[in-house]
Amino acid sequence: MKEFKVIEVKRSILEDNDADAALLREELKAQGTFLLNLMSSPGAGKTTMLKRLISMLKDEMRIGVMEADIDSDVDAQAIADMGVRAIQLHTGGMCHLDASMTRQGLREFNAGNLDLVVLENVGNLVCPAEFDTGACRNVMILSVPEGDDKPLKYPLMFSVCDVALINKIDVLPYFDFDMDKCQEYIHMRNPEAKIIPISAKNGEGFMEWAQWLREQVAAWADSR
Amino acid sequence: MKEFKVIEVKRSILEDNDADAALLREELKAQGTFLLNLMSSPGAGKTTMLKRLISMLKDEMRIGVMEADIDSDVDAQAIADMGVRAIQLHTGGMCHLDASMTRQGLREFNAGNLDLVVLENVGNLVCPAEFDTGACRNVMILSVPEGDDKPLKYPLMFSVCDVALINKIDVLPYFDFDMDKCQEYIHMRNPEAKIIPISAKNGEGFMEWAQWLREQVAAWADSR
Repeated sequence: MKEFKVIEVKRSILEDNDADAALLREELKAQGTFLLNLMSSPGAGKTTMLKRLISMLKDEMRIGVMEADIDSDVDAQAIADMGVRAIQLHTGGMCHLDASMTRQGLREFNAGNLDLVVLENVGNLVCPAEFDTGACRNVMILSVPEGDDKPLKYPLMFSVCDVALINKIDVLPYFDFDMDKCQEYIHMRNPEAKIIPISAKNGEGFMEWAQWLREQVAAWADSR
Repeated sequence: MKEFKVIEVKRSILEDNDADAALLREELKAQGTFLLNLMSSPGAGKTTMLKRLISMLKDEMRIGVMEADIDSDVDAQAIADMGVRAIQLHTGGMCHLDASMTRQGLREFNAGNLDLVVLENVGNLVCPAEFDTGACRNVMILSVPEGDDKPLKYPLMFSVCDVALINKIDVLPYFDFDMDKCQEYIHMRNPEAKIIPISAKNGEGFMEWAQWLREQVAAWADSR
């Protein structure tokens, strides 16, 4: 069992989260650290996706993961066991992270030594979409069992994401999920969103997904 | 296509939601209407479960359904088409309902003419658990694809539910879901919770679930 730190993050005292998030992005740019905000419903497969992604990228970049959870530590343990740096953020019942809470986690990492930090947000399709965490890019996971109509019901989440990963495509035969319709609904909300169908279980789609992230991390470092 | 009304509910101006919820429960008791608060993650199967339940109960009691959604009307239409009374509550981005918002919906129903009103809350395992809606009982749905560890990560939701329905058991063979462990985790959070594995797709478990609800509705009416 690898060690990881647990931090009880505090709600922001800043009134202007947007300004704070913009400032955090500037700080991250100055130190060349790319911060990815990962959002989804509970159980869409954030941690399983991350584990596979980390196994593909950990030899080419320095990675840290911040696991936000209301109470438990199971995800941070799973990530730490993969040999990358992990921090557990306890939100104390809060349903999302803001820029200030994100900064509290980054401070513990000394993020300047890392190329990529992934913030695994609280499992929730509503509140996390409303708060800019200071991340360079937002990624959301929609899983096949949740249904193809979710972009209709949770509009903001799909509007704010740069990438929508459609996970668990290995179980497509067992669900009534229309991939074309789902992609159409996502693009209704956000014509710019990149959509990548994946299976965190068998690895399908991960070449494209990892390549997108590689290019983003490199471009961020180059833009300093 | 059956008609249904859409209401833009407003955030409560009352500071004490708990007191307001207790008052609403008294009002419901006086008129013999049983209010069920239904919660889950996005895509756990709330509407599909409701449709099957309604088809079993609609000839023996007068049913109304309030569908809370941030923006869309797809669920209210599906329920209205079943021939029971349906109202769509638009929360305007809000991640949960409180007692005041629930009352705004009930008023439109003239709930005194109904034996059972189901409030389908916003799909979210965090925020809805924090707000008493005034319901007589809370039911949550956890679906198999979400994973057996959810009671560890979303403790309050499992603490406040009277019944946890474990849905989509028809796809158990395709997921790594330990039913015994899941039940153990739920009872860690809430030893009193009744757990009923169901499949909204094929009807498994619905005899027990419908019977529980029948008894609750009858007991509520008798306690006037």
